[in-house]
Amino acid sequence: MMATRTVRLCRGAFAAPQRFKSAMPDAAPATETSDLPPGFRSSGHIEMKTAVPGPISVATIASIGKTNPIGSFLAVVDYEKSFGNYLVCADGNTMLDCVGQIGSLPLGYNHPALMAKMASPEGISASINRPTLGMLPPVGWDDRVMNGLMSVAPAGQTNVVTMGCGSTANENAYKAATITYMRNKRDGVAITDEEMQSAIKNELPGCPKLSIMSFHGAFHGRTLGCLATTHSKPDHKIDVPTFDWPIASFPAAKFPLADHVEENMAEVERCLAEVETLIAEYAASCPVAAVIIEPIQGEGGDNHALPEFFHGLRAITKEHGVAFIVDEVQTGGGPSGKIWAHEHWNLVDPPDIVVFAKKLQIAGYYHTDAFKPTMPYQIFNTWMGDPAKLLQTEVYVDMLEQDALLDNVTAAGDVLISGLQSIAQDFPEDVLNVRGVGTFCSITLSSPKLRDTLLAQCRSRGLLISGCGPASVRFRPCLYFNGDHAHEACSILGEAVGAAKAAL
Amino acid sequence: MMATRTVRLCRGAFAAPQRFKSAMPDAAPATETSDLPPGFRSSGHIEMKTAVPGPISVATIASIGKTNPIGSFLAVVDYEKSFGNYLVCADGNTMLDCVGQIGSLPLGYNHPALMAKMASPEGISASINRPTLGMLPPVGWDDRVMNGLMSVAPAGQTNVVTMGCGSTANENAYKAATITYMRNKRDGVAITDEEMQSAIKNELPGCPKLSIMSFHGAFHGRTLGCLATTHSKPDHKIDVPTFDWPIASFPAAKFPLADHVEENMAEVERCLAEVETLIAEYAASCPVAAVIIEPIQGEGGDNHALPEFFHGLRAITKEHGVAFIVDEVQTGGGPSGKIWAHEHWNLVDPPDIVVFAKKLQIAGYYHTDAFKPTMPYQIFNTWMGDPAKLLQTEVYVDMLEQDALLDNVTAAGDVLISGLQSIAQDFPEDVLNVRGVGTFCSITLSSPKLRDTLLAQCRSRGLLISGCGPASVRFRPCLYFNGDHAHEACSILGEAVGAAKAAL
Repeated sequence: MMATRTVRLCRGAFAAPQRFKSAMPDAAPATETSDLPPGFRSSGHIEMKTAVPGPISVATIASIGKTNPIGSFLAVVDYEKSFGNYLVCADGNTMLDCVGQIGSLPLGYNHPALMAKMASPEGISASINRPTLGMLPPVGWDDRVMNGLMSVAPAGQTNVVTMGCGSTANENAYKAATITYMRNKRDGVAITDEEMQSAIKNELPGCPKLSIMSFHGAFHGRTLGCLATTHSKPDHKIDVPTFDWPIASFPAAKFPLADHVEENMAEVERCLAEVETLIAEYAASCPVAAVIIEPIQGEGGDNHALPEFFHGLRAITKEHGVAFIVDEVQTGGGPSGKIWAHEHWNLVDPPDIVVFAKKLQIAGYYHTDAFKPTMPYQIFNTWMGDPAKLLQTEVYVDMLEQDALLDNVTAAGDVLISGLQSIAQDFPEDVLNVRGVGTFCSITLSSPKLRDTLLAQCRSRGLLISGCGPASVRFRPCLYFNGDHAHEACSILGEAVGAAKAAL
Repeated sequence: MMATRTVRLCRGAFAAPQRFKSAMPDAAPATETSDLPPGFRSSGHIEMKTAVPGPISVATIASIGKTNPIGSFLAVVDYEKSFGNYLVCADGNTMLDCVGQIGSLPLGYNHPALMAKMASPEGISASINRPTLGMLPPVGWDDRVMNGLMSVAPAGQTNVVTMGCGSTANENAYKAATITYMRNKRDGVAITDEEMQSAIKNELPGCPKLSIMSFHGAFHGRTLGCLATTHSKPDHKIDVPTFDWPIASFPAAKFPLADHVEENMAEVERCLAEVETLIAEYAASCPVAAVIIEPIQGEGGDNHALPEFFHGLRAITKEHGVAFIVDEVQTGGGPSGKIWAHEHWNLVDPPDIVVFAKKLQIAGYYHTDAFKPTMPYQIFNTWMGDPAKLLQTEVYVDMLEQDALLDNVTAAGDVLISGLQSIAQDFPEDVLNVRGVGTFCSITLSSPKLRDTLLAQCRSRGLLISGCGPASVRFRPCLYFNGDHAHEACSILGEAVGAAKAAL
């Protein structure tokens, strides 16, 4: 089903998630779709009245800034008026949203099924009676999990732990990995009293020296454990204490792939050898308990790698008893045209842990049976997510099936890639490396300055896209983004590249 | 207004939070209250039909356990049927809830004002259109923050950052502290390119060796940074790598206080001296950037300390340029009879950072102007909390005022403490150290086994309370828990102590 792409690094088909295994193998794309308001299926709704941010946004941002120090506000949004793929800002501008709240918008704005669910007695109760999900779960929680999260579980993943955001999900995945590493190392011997008593004081042997390996360019979150595995921008890490954990090279693919097969395979081999070397180097001082990787490095610049690299990583981690954690926080939930981007790798052995957040609305991680904690309450958090979000995950899963959203993403991605290729042909010196899978697409500009100018030019024309890495632009629309929206986006983007060049 | 207490370690009055400064100084307790359904004001609703957990809970927990490995489920709850202070479980038992979802239930179950807010178009939009709050906040976000979080900001706290849970709030508070420490150390000199380039690789000087000091018995969360400051139970920490950060003694008060003034003051001096020694010891290898402390150590066993200790800590941290972080995740939001438990200390200089979560529904931290980050996006998270929760914070603040909930808590706490004292008089060998402020009350049993048996005996009689520390029992009801509920709770508790003794 996948169309020709300039770069198609993620390809093939892994076993389909459980719910779709029986329901979808012979399914043709849906011919009937749900009755949706404007902006979900229809395009052409952009309407610009002011600059972005407009005067109302500017005033509100100044007002927010009086008590909020984070300095990252772009515009103020009228979410009640936003619809489908279109975001309406406080100044009344209607924009095509290809950022999707950093890829965390699954079903667009004000989806009727989500509205109905949250207006129901069940939805309101879930919103206002926030439970300790790990102690006193609500009636029906087992069904909610089976119909929602477990119905889209990656093949091989038999357990799921819910958390509040991607960072807490990764932090707890790291804990599951080190706890399992130590249990395996003990090989049936019970935890000693000395271990327990030293742990409470942050001392050996209870708090072991163990490391989580990550990759240059990676982004896995911003809490202290996650931050020790994040290497996309120094701004995230400067002046924050960290762990001395190993960092390996993410393979730098040369494009077009067809012209650089040998070089790219050599780069894969080099990077895999580096992983093995680091595992050996850290074995004595701070053994590697887990390797974490994104299927596509999002924040780091939409860096893709060959499936052969991931196959090699799975083999190496298995050989050394190291957990293989796949961070699908940004790639998961459908933007690649499959629910999980790692399905494109065709792995034989599944990952040990798969982390999710963003498009799933609830965060957490799946894992195999081998990664269960040793004791009750070892993996725990007061809230462990939010049942109101899991209700929305269930609606997301229903819409995925009812509206054939994965097919929609694949078809939209084909149009988007074609449009981006056409722009790259018009501006061969300026627009480079058209790449993507599904609508998880990006281009690289010839300079950071051109990229930043381009983003502003797009914004003023009613197209919201975002930067990643030093000079790239990424698309992260919702799952209803279709071919018409892709045409609309590319038409503006092409015009904006010309304007950005002229403005430099 | 505070009644005589066996232990009254938190006392006095700090400056009132902003909203209540003008509104409440002369206010008598409210005579008129909102029209509330049964269970908010009324007591006597306990009705037991089965053991807890009953057969439906047991079956559902088994079903949940097939895909959920955390092993900490107690019972399954029918939240739609629960009301006010009463929790209704899946088996139809109606129980008086003095746990309040580990102290995170501000307004009881199914409060009509919360229901109305979340059923409104604004509430539904906030639920389903989850924004990147740090980039594209909703219209009215500035008003939401001012009417909600900032209206109850502790005195001296001029900024607020929202996050998803207590752990992410503390993690980011640590970052705000180390970033500020390094900025102060640079004293106006710009960050160097070497610092930026080394930070991205987890190396010096960009990722400095800095530590966060905590206290034995503390609980600050379970992500890796937080866990390095948590020392309440080894189960939380075993097999997880950590930082070599200093841990100081939390003063062990001797009861009754009136009989041990000199010893208790000597203990305060000893612990403060230890803090100073540790700051000096770590100065060369891993300087202390912040000290974090709970006003009352909750998870660690409801350990109280004299205000003099906190005054001393504030003075020492100020002298050494170390951030003073007060973790009000469990104590904040009203259970002490003030919105913030540290208001009872009567500090002259406010804390540098105050962390909140639980009863506020949204999590985050307040801080003074000196702790603003250096660069945009330095403190950031995709979601930064959830606007649906901030709407609920606003309702919470409205009810706090409308229903005079702080007065209610203070009055209920007096009844509760009297009842607990009476039980302690009946069982002088078994029930020890009656203590508390507001309804944040606890007792210590003579053994962990008696405590655990007591909890089960209470549960079977329809009273939900929870353990903390090795042998203590804590009360964490919602803010509508009143004198009648306290009578009901103590009546069951007294009976259950006798039954627990007999059962041992």
